[in-house]
Amino acid sequence: MRLLVLNPNTSASVTDRVAGTARGVAAPGTEIVAMTATRGVPYIATPAEALIGAAVAIETLAEHATGFDAAVIAAFADPGLGAARELLSIPVTGLAESAMLTACMLGRRFSIVAFTPALGPLFRECLDYNGLAARCASVRFVTRPFANIASVHDEQEDAVATLAAEAAQEDGADVVLLAGSPLTGLAARIADRVPVPVLDPVSPAIKHAEALVALAPRKARLGTHGRPEPKPSTGLPPALADRLARRP
Amino acid sequence: MRLLVLNPNTSASVTDRVAGTARGVAAPGTEIVAMTATRGVPYIATPAEALIGAAVAIETLAEHATGFDAAVIAAFADPGLGAARELLSIPVTGLAESAMLTACMLGRRFSIVAFTPALGPLFRECLDYNGLAARCASVRFVTRPFANIASVHDEQEDAVATLAAEAAQEDGADVVLLAGSPLTGLAARIADRVPVPVLDPVSPAIKHAEALVALAPRKARLGTHGRPEPKPSTGLPPALADRLARRP
Amino acid sequence: MRLLVLNPNTSASVTDRVAGTARGVAAPGTEIVAMTATRGVPYIATPAEALIGAAVAIETLAEHATGFDAAVIAAFADPGLGAARELLSIPVTGLAESAMLTACMLGRRFSIVAFTPALGPLFRECLDYNGLAARCASVRFVTRPFANIASVHDEQEDAVATLAAEAAQEDGADVVLLAGSPLTGLAARIADRVPVPVLDPVSPAIKHAEALVALAPRKARLGTHGRPEPKPSTGLPPALADRLARRP
Amino acid sequence: MRLLVLNPNTSASVTDRVAGTARGVAAPGTEIVAMTATRGVPYIATPAEALIGAAVAIETLAEHATGFDAAVIAAFADPGLGAARELLSIPVTGLAESAMLTACMLGRRFSIVAFTPALGPLFRECLDYNGLAARCASVRFVTRPFANIASVHDEQEDAVATLAAEAAQEDGADVVLLAGSPLTGLAARIADRVPVPVLDPVSPAIKHAEALVALAPRKARLGTHGRPEPKPSTGLPPALADRLARRP
Amino acid sequence: MRLLVLNPNTSASVTDRVAGTARGVAAPGTEIVAMTATRGVPYIATPAEALIGAAVAIETLAEHATGFDAAVIAAFADPGLGAARELLSIPVTGLAESAMLTACMLGRRFSIVAFTPALGPLFRECLDYNGLAARCASVRFVTRPFANIASVHDEQEDAVATLAAEAAQEDGADVVLLAGSPLTGLAARIADRVPVPVLDPVSPAIKHAEALVALAPRKARLGTHGRPEPKPSTGLPPALADRLARRP
Amino acid sequence: MRLLVLNPNTSASVTDRVAGTARGVAAPGTEIVAMTATRGVPYIATPAEALIGAAVAIETLAEHATGFDAAVIAAFADPGLGAARELLSIPVTGLAESAMLTACMLGRRFSIVAFTPALGPLFRECLDYNGLAARCASVRFVTRPFANIASVHDEQEDAVATLAAEAAQEDGADVVLLAGSPLTGLAARIADRVPVPVLDPVSPAIKHAEALVALAPRKARLGTHGRPEPKPSTGLPPALADRLARRP
Repeated sequence: MRLLVLNPNTSASVTDRVAGTARGVAAPGTEIVAMTATRGVPYIATPAEALIGAAVAIETLAEHATGFDAAVIAAFADPGLGAARELLSIPVTGLAESAMLTACMLGRRFSIVAFTPALGPLFRECLDYNGLAARCASVRFVTRPFANIASVHDEQEDAVATLAAEAAQEDGADVVLLAGSPLTGLAARIADRVPVPVLDPVSPAIKHAEALVALAPRKARLGTHGRPEPKPSTGLPPALADRLARRP
Repeated sequence: MRLLVLNPNTSASVTDRVAGTARGVAAPGTEIVAMTATRGVPYIATPAEALIGAAVAIETLAEHATGFDAAVIAAFADPGLGAARELLSIPVTGLAESAMLTACMLGRRFSIVAFTPALGPLFRECLDYNGLAARCASVRFVTRPFANIASVHDEQEDAVATLAAEAAQEDGADVVLLAGSPLTGLAARIADRVPVPVLDPVSPAIKHAEALVALAPRKARLGTHGRPEPKPSTGLPPALADRLARRP
Repeated sequence: MRLLVLNPNTSASVTDRVAGTARGVAAPGTEIVAMTATRGVPYIATPAEALIGAAVAIETLAEHATGFDAAVIAAFADPGLGAARELLSIPVTGLAESAMLTACMLGRRFSIVAFTPALGPLFRECLDYNGLAARCASVRFVTRPFANIASVHDEQEDAVATLAAEAAQEDGADVVLLAGSPLTGLAARIADRVPVPVLDPVSPAIKHAEALVALAPRKARLGTHGRPEPKPSTGLPPALADRLARRP
Repeated sequence: MRLLVLNPNTSASVTDRVAGTARGVAAPGTEIVAMTATRGVPYIATPAEALIGAAVAIETLAEHATGFDAAVIAAFADPGLGAARELLSIPVTGLAESAMLTACMLGRRFSIVAFTPALGPLFRECLDYNGLAARCASVRFVTRPFANIASVHDEQEDAVATLAAEAAQEDGADVVLLAGSPLTGLAARIADRVPVPVLDPVSPAIKHAEALVALAPRKARLGTHGRPEPKPSTGLPPALADRLARRP
Repeated sequence: MRLLVLNPNTSASVTDRVAGTARGVAAPGTEIVAMTATRGVPYIATPAEALIGAAVAIETLAEHATGFDAAVIAAFADPGLGAARELLSIPVTGLAESAMLTACMLGRRFSIVAFTPALGPLFRECLDYNGLAARCASVRFVTRPFANIASVHDEQEDAVATLAAEAAQEDGADVVLLAGSPLTGLAARIADRVPVPVLDPVSPAIKHAEALVALAPRKARLGTHGRPEPKPSTGLPPALADRLARRP
Repeated sequence: MRLLVLNPNTSASVTDRVAGTARGVAAPGTEIVAMTATRGVPYIATPAEALIGAAVAIETLAEHATGFDAAVIAAFADPGLGAARELLSIPVTGLAESAMLTACMLGRRFSIVAFTPALGPLFRECLDYNGLAARCASVRFVTRPFANIASVHDEQEDAVATLAAEAAQEDGADVVLLAGSPLTGLAARIADRVPVPVLDPVSPAIKHAEALVALAPRKARLGTHGRPEPKPSTGLPPALADRLARRP
């Protein structure tokens, strides 16, 4: 099984860490191919940045998805996830969605611990989009600015552990999600300091991608992820235009 | 007052009709400048197409909004609306949002009548994004394919009138919204055939843009539409990169 | 355009201030006629007081609305708004509804800052009635009693500014509404001290009334704001009885 | 125990039928005193009519409640219920609320069967006000006009029985509520024709009033049904003004 | 009227206190027969314990309900309530449901004060099951461990009174419910210290059971509480197997 | 990896089919051990039957789970799922939950197609318990009685295929879930006749169990699935009593 793991941010160092986590949790026989967005921002924090990342994501996936069994959009707010499902015929998963759905199997309510308060509005939109706001106990943020997106997981280890424990003890969280992708790898390091399960932001999306490949659902020919009749377009990248036009 | 009315679709004929409606309802002293997207699809019907249109919309607005008092994104699903509010310092309105909020002042529940069933998933996402699904009585679609997006308002006049009346009589709609922009101009023609108010998709967004200019709210420095610290980017159009970097 | 602005409270000094705000924001050519309830309470704070004010409002509007293009019920909980829409054939707006709908175009979540905690239950009912509770970040109150309803806007300027800023910084409000009508005029004075837009309670309802007149919706003949067959009544003020009986 | 049963409509014949049902279901030792509104409409069908009835209800209760152990507002949309609870110190129940709460103990979802489609918007507001819309399977109406409000229960017996059975068989109703007060007495007559429990609109409110008297809750000194400081008023009926002023 | 009051916990001392409260509030002519579960846990605190108690409850009721007019499941989370309604032909009430529904008649929002934080998840499930989470202002717990379930009502009197007052003053509770059954009897003792009504956990369920007997609803032959065709079973207690098989 | 797949129904033939599906979808190296409930009903259809099955499920799991890496409760309404998660230290999945969460990755709204209308109330409770009712487009049932639970998948193949297609075409389902376990194996056979993905009821739960084992979350020491202090019990099966007492 070949999985295309796309980081819609431009930080190659984060892509490397994401790929490391992915390979660590993937089943034997799953090949992880990681890609970094060639345009956009170093890390997506706001709705406008997520829109930019989403547009880049579907262009990249339209061009590169052929030959893969599934794709993973490796940013916590899942930029472009629904559109990718509509445009591609392989399963696509996202970090936020997979983490939240997995959390639903580990507890009744989850909390999200994130590395900057700037992510607040974006994560609220993400919760609403997934219809899971009622299962979210709280969203907590490290408020002290970080020095470097590549090392934020190290800089904030203690702060994240403290917030995760507080989410369980004070907010009633049954499980804690670390968000977003720059924090990958941290969950295992802080697990002992938190009285409820802590989820890495990357791992659930890899396992869900593998699961969907195993379930082998047919591509929708109708509904939200079906594509209507071939549609002409103007000025779009050729691979994306081909998807809209349903050209093979 | 100068309003930039951006059609995020590539159909210039629709832009012309939208501009006509806008000028008809605008207050004396309001100048309407209409623009058509230079890339994208002829009309947005699905979430993936809306994402493409949203990306085009914010790039276009980032480049052209200077010198305007407000902007209107003239497609019913409001592609890029939230991102535009974050990136620009002038008020921005959208057709769907404005029509739905106006409907809330004319009744307790509204129905949407649209020109193709392919719009269903996109409109449901739009209702959810606005948190107004509970005030929506129904979404009805003309199911017979139309010949031409430029003339769909003529082709479907009778079908739309019938659906609008049924929405009032059978679904409990207190007001009916016509969607999307290609239907502009039709509401007045069918009003006598519908027992509840019928809203044109363009007019409310123009009046709301004028109202917001009059209210003169300060640009948010915090929250969903505030911009955090200047952010570097790679490979984006210069005007958009400038907005992210908070360069004047 | 002639707008009837009805204060359903008995405080003429508040009516004067409301009229001042209304005239300041109205378009050229809009004539503001302000009226004060001749019976009721000095300011409405509870559901029972709102009911009393609502009954007075519809009696007053039934008697005086003829000759106006639209009416505004100038108390924040919108007493009698739905009933007025049913009984009158001109558009009617209310302070709370208009402020909340306008807030929805300036942010994803709003907070309400009010001049006394006694307003809490009434405002919660108002949020629920409008189906917008999920878009309300918080309701904050000045807890120190005010000396005089006519000067509460002066007495509480600093307290309101502080609460508004806290709503943005601590509660995640993207926009703050000042409530209710006795605070009109204060928004502009505190805008610089709040990092998100601050809305005056009166201005949005004036602009919405103007917008609805421009949109010229037909009077509903069905649904929530339609009137069924003529209905007899006993012991009601003649103008109100005429509306029920559909006497011209 | 003395119960004041107030019909906020002006139809004395309906009051008589309501009183009959009330006496039939009341416990030994419960005295039923029934009153009819002296102004208003013969039967409340719309939100505006409900507001008129609510204002009459609180004026009447303010004047006459002294000496009673509890009061019942005997119209299905519960006009004035919340305000009465705020103004009086005895328990007050309403037909719609009591029927819906009782239905919650007899099933997971209820349907409402009513005597005219004109009641639709009012009942939807009532469901929302009680936060019970999610437990309502459907609202069905007899669409054929009735000849006389005093005999509607006879005229519509078969039609109501059919709708009630359809609500159970087609809409998934676990219990059916007959609405409103003019239909009292009909539930027992059609029970055999409906495969789920059928609730009379009057009986639950009587039993709830008795139950609340037995539970003897203290009058709230805070919150929604507490009264704040004494409040002056102008032009209101003396008994109502006294309640606002907290004069004994 | 004979009421079977079943304590699904194994603490006979709590059963005695519940029976005392029940007899104190019951109408003349109501006979209270109290039973204690013969297996299970001393007091139910978690979802797993509630499931164990629920299974015991329906077995016990299946065996002993014959000859009673109604049954009360006397634990606050209502273990087995829905299943009992399906299996029995007499009305069944539960402490949590009755308390919450009664609270809806005494205010718009209620708070729950309970004797251990371990009850949190179970009470949240109970609120959701009843669809009343939106009417719950808060759930507060005494955090200091109690010495003995039989005397917890004495140990915690002051702590409960304080939490109840705080719920009214800080959380906006219009009414406070004491939970669960071990706290019965405490409401009356603390009523003077709380500015809103305080409900005993047992009394409302008794009054609701009496009310349902008076209303005499037919046993559902369809829907959630109807029983489908007779069903065979294996290894179940004979009385329960008989109910499933619809053997008289 | 060893998975314990427990059928909480007493139909061994269904267990065999469930085991077959499980083995077909399991990863290499996953050993499936299937068990059938030794008491209960042949197939669970109602809330009371689900409660009986849930009690049996936790007793069985308490006794047999040792030595397994995860457990699957193989009935569509997930009887005992939450309690099992509380009592066991290994991950537990359920058919309904896993199918619904998987559906959330394949579309925005799903429909459920089931083999008897008697399942309606149980499935509605299941949707509510998971907080996913808003993502359910419809629940459709084969209404013609089946002859044998062991062959219902053959008897209803065409009826299920028709309902699944109608759910996509008429109800707006983006994906269709077949429910419950007796229908396992049917999804693949009808996939070509349905324009959206069709999910087998068993497969997602197997893949989720494998995924959770790979993610290796710590057992909660707090929250909904944590166990509080050791608790004594009376009359329970020894293995279950040990879990409550936290005896190893």
